[in-house]
Amino acid sequence: MTKVVTMGEIMLRLSTPGFERFVQANSFDAIYGGGEANVAVSLANYGFDSYFVTKLPEHEIGQAAVNELRRYGVNTDYIARGGERVGIYFSESGASMRPSKVVYDRSNSSIAEAIVEDFNFEEIFKDAKWFHISGITPAISKSGAEITRAAMKAAKEAGVMVSIDLNYRKKLWTPEEAQEVMRDLMQYVDVCIGNEEDASLSLGFTPKGLDVTSGKINIEGYKQILKEMKEEFGFKYVASSLRESYSASDNGWSACIYDGKEFYQSKKYDVRIVDRVGGGDSFASGLICGLLDGKSTSDALEFGVAASALKHTIKGDFNHMSRSEVQTLVDGDSSGRVQR
Amino acid sequence: MTKVVTMGEIMLRLSTPGFERFVQANSFDAIYGGGEANVAVSLANYGFDSYFVTKLPEHEIGQAAVNELRRYGVNTDYIARGGERVGIYFSESGASMRPSKVVYDRSNSSIAEAIVEDFNFEEIFKDAKWFHISGITPAISKSGAEITRAAMKAAKEAGVMVSIDLNYRKKLWTPEEAQEVMRDLMQYVDVCIGNEEDASLSLGFTPKGLDVTSGKINIEGYKQILKEMKEEFGFKYVASSLRESYSASDNGWSACIYDGKEFYQSKKYDVRIVDRVGGGDSFASGLICGLLDGKSTSDALEFGVAASALKHTIKGDFNHMSRSEVQTLVDGDSSGRVQR
Amino acid sequence: MTKVVTMGEIMLRLSTPGFERFVQANSFDAIYGGGEANVAVSLANYGFDSYFVTKLPEHEIGQAAVNELRRYGVNTDYIARGGERVGIYFSESGASMRPSKVVYDRSNSSIAEAIVEDFNFEEIFKDAKWFHISGITPAISKSGAEITRAAMKAAKEAGVMVSIDLNYRKKLWTPEEAQEVMRDLMQYVDVCIGNEEDASLSLGFTPKGLDVTSGKINIEGYKQILKEMKEEFGFKYVASSLRESYSASDNGWSACIYDGKEFYQSKKYDVRIVDRVGGGDSFASGLICGLLDGKSTSDALEFGVAASALKHTIKGDFNHMSRSEVQTLVDGDSSGRVQR
Amino acid sequence: MTKVVTMGEIMLRLSTPGFERFVQANSFDAIYGGGEANVAVSLANYGFDSYFVTKLPEHEIGQAAVNELRRYGVNTDYIARGGERVGIYFSESGASMRPSKVVYDRSNSSIAEAIVEDFNFEEIFKDAKWFHISGITPAISKSGAEITRAAMKAAKEAGVMVSIDLNYRKKLWTPEEAQEVMRDLMQYVDVCIGNEEDASLSLGFTPKGLDVTSGKINIEGYKQILKEMKEEFGFKYVASSLRESYSASDNGWSACIYDGKEFYQSKKYDVRIVDRVGGGDSFASGLICGLLDGKSTSDALEFGVAASALKHTIKGDFNHMSRSEVQTLVDGDSSGRVQR
Amino acid sequence: MTKVVTMGEIMLRLSTPGFERFVQANSFDAIYGGGEANVAVSLANYGFDSYFVTKLPEHEIGQAAVNELRRYGVNTDYIARGGERVGIYFSESGASMRPSKVVYDRSNSSIAEAIVEDFNFEEIFKDAKWFHISGITPAISKSGAEITRAAMKAAKEAGVMVSIDLNYRKKLWTPEEAQEVMRDLMQYVDVCIGNEEDASLSLGFTPKGLDVTSGKINIEGYKQILKEMKEEFGFKYVASSLRESYSASDNGWSACIYDGKEFYQSKKYDVRIVDRVGGGDSFASGLICGLLDGKSTSDALEFGVAASALKHTIKGDFNHMSRSEVQTLVDGDSSGRVQR
Amino acid sequence: MTKVVTMGEIMLRLSTPGFERFVQANSFDAIYGGGEANVAVSLANYGFDSYFVTKLPEHEIGQAAVNELRRYGVNTDYIARGGERVGIYFSESGASMRPSKVVYDRSNSSIAEAIVEDFNFEEIFKDAKWFHISGITPAISKSGAEITRAAMKAAKEAGVMVSIDLNYRKKLWTPEEAQEVMRDLMQYVDVCIGNEEDASLSLGFTPKGLDVTSGKINIEGYKQILKEMKEEFGFKYVASSLRESYSASDNGWSACIYDGKEFYQSKKYDVRIVDRVGGGDSFASGLICGLLDGKSTSDALEFGVAASALKHTIKGDFNHMSRSEVQTLVDGDSSGRVQR
Repeated sequence: MTKVVTMGEIMLRLSTPGFERFVQANSFDAIYGGGEANVAVSLANYGFDSYFVTKLPEHEIGQAAVNELRRYGVNTDYIARGGERVGIYFSESGASMRPSKVVYDRSNSSIAEAIVEDFNFEEIFKDAKWFHISGITPAISKSGAEITRAAMKAAKEAGVMVSIDLNYRKKLWTPEEAQEVMRDLMQYVDVCIGNEEDASLSLGFTPKGLDVTSGKINIEGYKQILKEMKEEFGFKYVASSLRESYSASDNGWSACIYDGKEFYQSKKYDVRIVDRVGGGDSFASGLICGLLDGKSTSDALEFGVAASALKHTIKGDFNHMSRSEVQTLVDGDSSGRVQR
Repeated sequence: MTKVVTMGEIMLRLSTPGFERFVQANSFDAIYGGGEANVAVSLANYGFDSYFVTKLPEHEIGQAAVNELRRYGVNTDYIARGGERVGIYFSESGASMRPSKVVYDRSNSSIAEAIVEDFNFEEIFKDAKWFHISGITPAISKSGAEITRAAMKAAKEAGVMVSIDLNYRKKLWTPEEAQEVMRDLMQYVDVCIGNEEDASLSLGFTPKGLDVTSGKINIEGYKQILKEMKEEFGFKYVASSLRESYSASDNGWSACIYDGKEFYQSKKYDVRIVDRVGGGDSFASGLICGLLDGKSTSDALEFGVAASALKHTIKGDFNHMSRSEVQTLVDGDSSGRVQR
Repeated sequence: MTKVVTMGEIMLRLSTPGFERFVQANSFDAIYGGGEANVAVSLANYGFDSYFVTKLPEHEIGQAAVNELRRYGVNTDYIARGGERVGIYFSESGASMRPSKVVYDRSNSSIAEAIVEDFNFEEIFKDAKWFHISGITPAISKSGAEITRAAMKAAKEAGVMVSIDLNYRKKLWTPEEAQEVMRDLMQYVDVCIGNEEDASLSLGFTPKGLDVTSGKINIEGYKQILKEMKEEFGFKYVASSLRESYSASDNGWSACIYDGKEFYQSKKYDVRIVDRVGGGDSFASGLICGLLDGKSTSDALEFGVAASALKHTIKGDFNHMSRSEVQTLVDGDSSGRVQR
Repeated sequence: MTKVVTMGEIMLRLSTPGFERFVQANSFDAIYGGGEANVAVSLANYGFDSYFVTKLPEHEIGQAAVNELRRYGVNTDYIARGGERVGIYFSESGASMRPSKVVYDRSNSSIAEAIVEDFNFEEIFKDAKWFHISGITPAISKSGAEITRAAMKAAKEAGVMVSIDLNYRKKLWTPEEAQEVMRDLMQYVDVCIGNEEDASLSLGFTPKGLDVTSGKINIEGYKQILKEMKEEFGFKYVASSLRESYSASDNGWSACIYDGKEFYQSKKYDVRIVDRVGGGDSFASGLICGLLDGKSTSDALEFGVAASALKHTIKGDFNHMSRSEVQTLVDGDSSGRVQR
Repeated sequence: MTKVVTMGEIMLRLSTPGFERFVQANSFDAIYGGGEANVAVSLANYGFDSYFVTKLPEHEIGQAAVNELRRYGVNTDYIARGGERVGIYFSESGASMRPSKVVYDRSNSSIAEAIVEDFNFEEIFKDAKWFHISGITPAISKSGAEITRAAMKAAKEAGVMVSIDLNYRKKLWTPEEAQEVMRDLMQYVDVCIGNEEDASLSLGFTPKGLDVTSGKINIEGYKQILKEMKEEFGFKYVASSLRESYSASDNGWSACIYDGKEFYQSKKYDVRIVDRVGGGDSFASGLICGLLDGKSTSDALEFGVAASALKHTIKGDFNHMSRSEVQTLVDGDSSGRVQR
Repeated sequence: MTKVVTMGEIMLRLSTPGFERFVQANSFDAIYGGGEANVAVSLANYGFDSYFVTKLPEHEIGQAAVNELRRYGVNTDYIARGGERVGIYFSESGASMRPSKVVYDRSNSSIAEAIVEDFNFEEIFKDAKWFHISGITPAISKSGAEITRAAMKAAKEAGVMVSIDLNYRKKLWTPEEAQEVMRDLMQYVDVCIGNEEDASLSLGFTPKGLDVTSGKINIEGYKQILKEMKEEFGFKYVASSLRESYSASDNGWSACIYDGKEFYQSKKYDVRIVDRVGGGDSFASGLICGLLDGKSTSDALEFGVAASALKHTIKGDFNHMSRSEVQTLVDGDSSGRVQR
């Protein structure tokens, strides 16, 4: 099996049942997830030898996070144990014109307070083929940024492909702080994933006329920005998912990619949403899977988009779709007929 | 804080889980609600000092109703205690072409058997700015009608703005009975809310060519009826929500208002329904909020419509939306993007 | 009351809650159902004296299946008891482009291992007016085929109308095996129900250009096939439901019938799906009800289609709709307005 | 099968989950039960052809009550349909020194407003062997008392054995009212069941030194009262369950009977309580089963006591124990070892 | 109504359902509670005008905590809003010899980071009769200790009775740190509650031969320590609950008090535990209620012990028992007979 | 880490919620477990490198079983995939004198139809220190017996310690069939675990005066039988758990062992039962852990008994107790005090 590594934070997501608002909830569904952990699970689902690197407390809540990763086939041998807390976020699911809402309570988590010495990157990247990370980990703390840089550098030195999902989070840092850290990290990146907003806020590219609340996609703007990003940082691939938010219940979902030669725009899916958290992560993991499989740029893109369209129909952060299930959709069957 | 008063019945709603039909249900969700109580909770959510007046038994089921009001910030100091029972209604949620269904079991509730002397209206309306009631309370019993009239009269004498939601209920009385009571009450009303059907059945206005099952709105018919109502009863404002029932799952939702000078028709929202019970009440409370805030007629209308469109996405009778959340929708963001 | 008989398997359906995938589930909803049992329950709902014939183990799981039938008014006096197990199937509900999925675990069930002597067909069909069966029972085992044939023969001899739903199941037999058994059984059939796929796989009719994943209906092809089937086997009626699978969440639903004189195509409903399992069975039972009631061919068809459109909005296999609720939809009210 | 008839009220019990108090509950378990209905279900479980007679509304909540009886094998053919409501009671489960609590909301139920003409007693008692009723039905309304008397008279005339469970309910009538009605009804009774409190309040027998809160049983007092009751009213059997309430979680449970010749006291069981509602009814039905089976007085008593001890371990009003399961306990195995 | 004030932290308790261990849980019950908040709710239940003082974030999780207090009648007008997080603790319920377990995640909560200026103590204590606090608040942070001291001082100056529950928490501070803060605070205390362990660790009193794991109570040791505490600090009353931990399922529960004249030991209850969290708080609130009511020392003690014995039978932190329900147990009825 | 191997069947346990009987259940908790799988999970909990060997279908229900093992740290690399079904058993929890009940539906499971060639025993036992199996696997099918024998032989040849839990299952084979297979397998066994009943039925030892329903333990009888077993088969250790079934809710629990020199009887625990399924397996795994740790015979025994006493307090088959939690109980703290 091909060894792949992701690193980041796995959080406890406390999700209100059904469409309950926070103030109505008498219980929370306990879901574990987080950008990179979601990628790790998807890659395990696709049959890769998927390792997730993080730090978690030794107590039972930390253990439960480890267990959820193991349950879905992720190798947890490189997870450091210690620190005080598992980062938490509360979520409620929107519907129609009522947006979903997230309340973060992630400060001082074990991974945010981890240090570079908690991890043996030489061992971690030994024989690995791919390393994926997001722009969240460098944002959670100063040491988070240091760990991210150390990991990317070690991966690069070990000859591992490196992908990043820019994932700008405005609750964690300002655009200025982000750009100072992120632009420096780009030297290690082979595959960069991020939408116009991320490109602007994390890397300082100026999007033209982007209005994320309009639900319209300016595809020419994307084309230009992806090319500029590629030129400035020398990425092998630069890609973006394209979400059209008609409402909290229905989205258009597609993606585009530029590989230095061609710009591809994928098929668009109209998705009825069960849970959109982790949609971007499932695109990243689908794309990585396609590229690791040696698919063409456009085929890898279509695999990533189909994977992530399907994710929107699954409760929780993780994308519980197998490789063959994704391929069936890529091959054109979106009829939803019962599989007996 | 501005003191506002609503009066009516709060019932125990026993709601089947999910889309279960009554004959399938092994449990009921216990929800408390009722036309005026729903308005009271919304007004508390918008920051008003909201009092709800009713009568409830002293036993624990009555207490649970009080508690649910307190939980959401409603002042329950004026609630009389006594009598035998909390009115009950059973509800199941429809989907697609299967309608939602309600079975009432509300006879002989404490408020239906209450008497005028149970309430000290002088104290209740002291320093109050608004009094809201519906056409349900006068329909539940003869003494209910007497209490309603006494309350409206006292409110008027105390200089309080009075609004009514006509809310004709055919299980409670005939059009003849309704009109005899309701036409008399109109003398105390400043703001009258009701659709064509209510206007016809409660007040005797003849709607022209209205077919509530067609899902089409005859806006010219509404314009004319609202003007006629205004003329006959001297309301300051007369308004109606406009529901287009495409199916039990999807409705068009808008509203119109006439203020004696202009007739306004609001923006229309296409709502994917989570729970449509309380939709009209959330329109009333949103409109009242807008008017109390001193908004223009059309702005108050838009606030009311946005509030009630959002209500359709929330489980239960109460509209758990804050003033700023409603305003965001009024301001045009219906993209449903995750609020982090 | 008119006595009607159905025979087949009732299974324990273990259904994941909400939209959970199998690997996420920590509990299963326990639902009992199966093609013919679903028909039996519908016919009981419509007021017929509905008997269901099967064999079930004596243990409590078998008893629970009996109880669920009794609960919904089905007479269980002819159910043989014995054998080892209740057939099981696991189901998860799809959404949007993710299909629903079924995992069968039905081998060696009591009915699959039953023998002809377990049933007294003379008594069973005494005074009965209708007998319904599906193509599943002859497929579950060799003795299942024998029992089916014996039952159909006995029904025919007793002057009972016989209907069959072809229901080809590829997990149970090959087209060759199916045709050998099914073509022989057709001699006893008055009313044959089955789509193009069933006609092809169970009876060997060649559908022209049918692509079940395209979501498009070739109505001329259906017209021709129904006529050919009628001609070859001498059915009184031959009918098919017409499903257009836009996605796992939304389907178009209609049906057609040929009575030897006219070919009728019904109104089409666009259904938002709650649970599509049992959709075909509810069409069969609605059509049977219409024919037993002496409705015209097209009226019976419309009753069947309305009944089954409504089934898609109900959780579980059974169609918990009364005769009058179905008729309301037939009569044109699909507005889904709350029934108070 | 032996035909047995019970008559009375079946209510909707709304029970808080687990040990929740009313004010904590966000949902209610929907349980159907009531003194005589509980007896009817037990007798069906024991293999009798058990008919339950009552009146229930035509709406879906009434239907759900019918369905629950059918589910457990009770024949519902004699249930009249009409009236407005199903009687309701709310219950919360106590624990340790916190008592269970019941809030009744049963006024104006369909059976309370039924009239003698709603029932065809000649048909009902045709070929019946036993008729059981309780002291609750005559207490719910004046017409309830009339129906009870008419039924008992008709049963007697039809040569049916008549049993009554005195079941005094202080919320429904005063001792004076009770005695006026109940003493008259005793002329039709063959088997009378009731504890000291019932004997005192319903029939006017003076218990000596009974303190129901002490948890102690005065067996000599019981012996004397049973004999006096037998002498005054000429019962064939007079019996009483004997509850020792150590706490809401643990009770001692036994019974005694006098058959005119001997006074028997049963074995005592110490029960860990899951749900004690219906404990007395399960004693009555066990005793009736024993007597119908032709057991000796003491064997019938032991069967009744074992049956009702087991009831305390079952959630809900109904006693879901088979004849053989009860017999196993009678035969001495109370080890609770897993039955594989 | 008599105004009483409590101050401290209200946390979100995430409790595994039933007896699930943390690693098994797929959801958490969302319960709000905390030492002083529990006292505030009890005092509201007993009919006092109960104010709770704390600081909570403005976001919806903070609001949900406010709402839960309001639901049960606590006045939340003095709650400051701001800061980042609601303190959290995870809990699982033990059984038999498996102990309950708590994982704290309470650092950096809003109240831990609050400052004295967040509260207007003059207004808070105006017309108040009692102020209750615990040893937890001064332990959560340096500013927590300052706020506690400021509040106690202000209460004392306003002539308000002050009670404290020592509640030593070893996760929050060392005995040395505790004693430095706590001994100083004792100057403001009228009623001190704490067991031997608290007395030792918070105040430096040497318990003699106390072994909390033995389940035995050394009553003479308690007597001596309470007297010493009274002498050193001049308390009006010093009291302790006495828990005998037979197992996680069964405890003996009593209490003792010294009022400067007499030492009283209460009746002992053997409790079957539903949820023991908040047991000590319910003793404190019961005792406070008794003293505020002007009961004798021993009667107040018995009221407190009965109240807290009952708490052990209730899920959650709050003690949902009314004054009359507690009194019934004080008066000797622990039979647990159903209250109809 | 020390490598340990267990082999057998993991089943899907469908467990009714709470204390519901099968006929009441509307859902089932989905629990995975089975004698040897339970041992595998415990050993992983204790920190061993625990491998479980079985065969499971490739479909999602099979995958869910794999996932549950991985979740709790069991290595699933040696699990063969294929076959048709996961064995199922239905369970309901008894209470007081009502026994728990199990309905098996395990025939034709993948492991029952597996063949020796499905497993590479050389690789499986490479570097392993312990192999545990039970008497269930050889009983499920002829090939099950062959696989068991092949595995035990291979383990022996690889120098691995072999333990067996006799676990006679009367639904799977007769004593004669059992003895023919089991007596032969004993040649490979180092540690034999089984009670008097197992010894008699599986191995043909005559227990003297054993009455498993009496709840009494005949310790001298055990002593003698263990010695005889040791002598006949040359075991290193022979042990038995000792269950005293007071009721379905309360058991006495202890164990004894004979190591060829001394016979030890452990401390006895009185357990309040949450779920007794897996009690014996948790004793086996605790004992194995103690022996692998090099504890003395009696210390290993006490560790096993404490572990399994704790298991009775945990829902599900698996024993979610850590090594240190078990040790705390061994060391004498059974007070159940909250662990904060």
